[in-house]
Amino acid sequence: MHAILDEGYVCHLGFVRDGAPVVLPTLYGRVGETLYVHGSTGSRPLRMTGQADPGLPVCLTVTHVDGLVLARSAFHHSINYRSVVVHGTAYDVTDPQEKLAALDALVDHVVPGRAADSRPANKKELAATAVIRLDLNEVSAKTRTGGVNEEPEDLALPHWAGVVPLRKGYDAPLPDEFLAPGTALPDYLAVP
Amino acid sequence: MHAILDEGYVCHLGFVRDGAPVVLPTLYGRVGETLYVHGSTGSRPLRMTGQADPGLPVCLTVTHVDGLVLARSAFHHSINYRSVVVHGTAYDVTDPQEKLAALDALVDHVVPGRAADSRPANKKELAATAVIRLDLNEVSAKTRTGGVNEEPEDLALPHWAGVVPLRKGYDAPLPDEFLAPGTALPDYLAVP
Repeated sequence: MHAILDEGYVCHLGFVRDGAPVVLPTLYGRVGETLYVHGSTGSRPLRMTGQADPGLPVCLTVTHVDGLVLARSAFHHSINYRSVVVHGTAYDVTDPQEKLAALDALVDHVVPGRAADSRPANKKELAATAVIRLDLNEVSAKTRTGGVNEEPEDLALPHWAGVVPLRKGYDAPLPDEFLAPGTALPDYLAVP
Repeated sequence: MHAILDEGYVCHLGFVRDGAPVVLPTLYGRVGETLYVHGSTGSRPLRMTGQADPGLPVCLTVTHVDGLVLARSAFHHSINYRSVVVHGTAYDVTDPQEKLAALDALVDHVVPGRAADSRPANKKELAATAVIRLDLNEVSAKTRTGGVNEEPEDLALPHWAGVVPLRKGYDAPLPDEFLAPGTALPDYLAVP
C-alpha cells in the first residue's frame, strides 16, 4: 500500500459539505504511517478543520491506471489499475516542526530528493500553508493485473483483444528561462 | 470541460455512506450532457440506487496531471493539471436502450471506436451490469498551466527550476495469445 501511495502525484480527497459529497484532487505526502495534504489556508477542506475542531471525516483515494484491457466482448472490457482507499479523520497540523516535516514530504513526494535541493519555506510561507494529517489506520487496496478475461465461445471472434499498457514516467524536463548560470539538471531528474 | 472529461480513463466518484465520505475510482463515459458510470449490480454506490429511490448525491471528479512544477522555493512547487468536478444526483438507468447506449459510451470512452469492434452485451450481461447517470448541470473546471512562479529574490538561487512534463499515451499493445488467426492490430490502436 505504501508503494501505491508513494507513486501517485495527486490523491482525490473526499469529504462531506452540507450533507453532500465533495471530491477534490490535491497533492499529498507520506511520513511513515501518516499522510499529509496541503493547500492554502483559504481552501475548502482545510478551512473546515482547526485546532479546536474535532477533525474532518475524509476518504482519500489514489489510483494508477496501468493498462486498458480490450476483450472481444464489450462486457469484459476493463482496465488494469492499482488503487488505495484511506478512510479516517483528518486533523489540522499545528506543531511547527511537524508542519515543516510534512512540507518536505509533500515536495519529496513529487520528486524524491527535491526538498533538500530547494529553498525551505520561511515563516510567512509556513503561515500561509495549511496542512492536515490523516493516519493510515483504515486502508484498503484493490488492483487488477494481467490479461483479458473472455467467454470461451468468444475466443474465435475476429476482434483484436489484449492489453494496452499506458506510458509512465516523464519526458525531458523544460528548464525555467531564468536559471542561474551553470545550473545543471539534477541527477534526480535524469530521464531514465 | 467535455475535452477534459473525455480524456480521462477513470473518474473518482464520491458519495456519502452512513454520514461518511467514500471515494472510489470507476470507469465512465459521456453521451452529450450526461455521464454514465457502471459497475456490477452488487457494487457499493450502485446498489444504493434503484428505480424507486430518489437518487444518490454524488461528486464525480476527473483529473489529469500534466507536469511537475519545480520552483527554487519549496513553497512554490506545484503541478500542472486539468480537472473537472461534477456535482449532482445519480440515477439508476433502467431503460434498456439507454443502458445499451451507455455501455457503448463506456467502451468507446476507453478506446474511441472500440464499441463497434466488439461483441455487444447479451441479455444476461446487460442484467448483470448496473449503470447510473449523472447529468452535467453543476460542473466546474480548474487548471494550472505554464511555468514556474517564483519570488524575484529567489531567481539567483542555484537550484534547478522548471517543468517536468509527464508522459502521455500508451506503449505498444500486447495481443492476447489466443487471437483468431489473421486478426490485425486495429487502426484505432496504432501507436502514434
